[in-house]
Amino acid sequence: MKLAERVRTGDRLALARLLTLIENNSPEGQDTLSELHALTGRAHRIGVTGAPGTGKSALVNRLTQHLRAQDDPPFVAIVAVDPTSPFTGGAILGDRIRMRDLSGDPGIFIRSMANRGALGGLAGTTSGVVDALDAAGFQWILIETVGTGQAEVDIAGAAHTVLVLGAPGMGDAVQTLKAGVLEISDILVVNKSDLPGAESAARALRAALELGPVDSEWMTPILLTSADNGDGIPELAAKISTHMEHLKKTGGREERDHARVVGEMERLLQQRLTDRFKAAQSDGDYERAIERVVDRELSPMRAIDELFQD
Amino acid sequence: MKLAERVRTGDRLALARLLTLIENNSPEGQDTLSELHALTGRAHRIGVTGAPGTGKSALVNRLTQHLRAQDDPPFVAIVAVDPTSPFTGGAILGDRIRMRDLSGDPGIFIRSMANRGALGGLAGTTSGVVDALDAAGFQWILIETVGTGQAEVDIAGAAHTVLVLGAPGMGDAVQTLKAGVLEISDILVVNKSDLPGAESAARALRAALELGPVDSEWMTPILLTSADNGDGIPELAAKISTHMEHLKKTGGREERDHARVVGEMERLLQQRLTDRFKAAQSDGDYERAIERVVDRELSPMRAIDELFQD
Repeated sequence: MKLAERVRTGDRLALARLLTLIENNSPEGQDTLSELHALTGRAHRIGVTGAPGTGKSALVNRLTQHLRAQDDPPFVAIVAVDPTSPFTGGAILGDRIRMRDLSGDPGIFIRSMANRGALGGLAGTTSGVVDALDAAGFQWILIETVGTGQAEVDIAGAAHTVLVLGAPGMGDAVQTLKAGVLEISDILVVNKSDLPGAESAARALRAALELGPVDSEWMTPILLTSADNGDGIPELAAKISTHMEHLKKTGGREERDHARVVGEMERLLQQRLTDRFKAAQSDGDYERAIERVVDRELSPMRAIDELFQD
Repeated sequence: MKLAERVRTGDRLALARLLTLIENNSPEGQDTLSELHALTGRAHRIGVTGAPGTGKSALVNRLTQHLRAQDDPPFVAIVAVDPTSPFTGGAILGDRIRMRDLSGDPGIFIRSMANRGALGGLAGTTSGVVDALDAAGFQWILIETVGTGQAEVDIAGAAHTVLVLGAPGMGDAVQTLKAGVLEISDILVVNKSDLPGAESAARALRAALELGPVDSEWMTPILLTSADNGDGIPELAAKISTHMEHLKKTGGREERDHARVVGEMERLLQQRLTDRFKAAQSDGDYERAIERVVDRELSPMRAIDELFQD
């Protein structure tokens, strides 16, 4: 049977193989993704982000267990995107705990991505991986990533619903969240609510939110959860579902899907154009232009101008 | 007098105007940068990064004051790159404190960049701004940015010496620093050393560093500083100078300059190629391709394939 067919019919080994092909940017992976593309668009894509130490992995695990314990449970995929190098081992440790908590349930599929992959960095690869999981029938896809900065902007582009996590005792909660994450959050979560200071962290976040622009259609809720003891997890799952319904009603889902495709096309286009341009250059022209900039003969912009003059 | 000439001879108003032109990606800005390009390459570019709340701005201010109080003080420029939206106002607050501490000294020039600019996002614009400051004769250029993630990778690409800041009481110091920042740091700084826990944070960082790959040429030092009371600032300035000398001796400076130019050329090339491609498309072809992906007729990769077939 063809790989696409095997993925479609729930063969988990075939799915794992497809994800590896996508990560390696192999033609077979692209062919298969292309065959499966018509099956995408059914999953709810949920981004989970926040500073290191806020308990993202633990929360994702708890939420997954909660979803799977429901009547008629959804299929849940977890994509853990970790731009961390193997240096400090955070990803590996998180994965071990995750496997202990979640393994053995065929309705859960977990994929960790710690490598930048060949195609447009982590963002490009993640997109294909999530599409494949969507086509394979996972109804909830949780995309977890660390940090502030580009990774978070990327996750906002990849998800329908974005959860941003904070935790008490991480210094000033508002400070740690300041780098543009309040804007991308659909649901704010103060995790580790069993620790002291959770309520005041939630109040500080509420105050910060009230300073921002008001979206009359969706008031970003602030939930308290404890991945440790499970407090607030059912409420979080319900709130995500509410946001899903809200997006469907308001056309926000189509809007986000459209923006995601625009972003991905842009990435692929840049990659393709750059590859073609370099292949078409006479031997070493581009490298020589770089050397001339390094030697301060030309500014970078003028060097590019010259490359396009012939 | 021409703008380039005015910048070269120390006219601060002309410099401010050039930076605005660069931020707006105006042709005059590019022409002027090009004329000034031969004068670049003299500054030492120092990146300062770390999680929100570690006191980056305060440390940069203190360090600048220390440098300016030396005999034969260097000209110092500060570029504060803040990917934060105006939402929480962190950038604005930091700027006010900065102006209070540093204004009135003609040997200091401060530029805040909170907008993504036209050209390849913040990274593209920062590069031109720093080049202009370099050409204008600033010997120390401190490039300050918040957060983990892409901003930090960018700063590592833009700087000769990268300072990564931590602070005690920010949760687990190693955790907050885990997302790839240990690898990019040339000097680790535990700021707010007047607070309890600074010594143990430094020990934890030392332990984390020892887990990593050993660079026999440069052992990343860990310094304790207090931007509040000035402790450790002279030692930090001295250590940066030591790193400068080290880079010059080992060829590391040329290596970093080369990598920086390669990165910038790549960004400009992508931008130029994408602009040209879109301009050359028949009306709406690219947009139609996007719609076909949204409608699940084609995978993104196949849509790009089709655009390149004609």
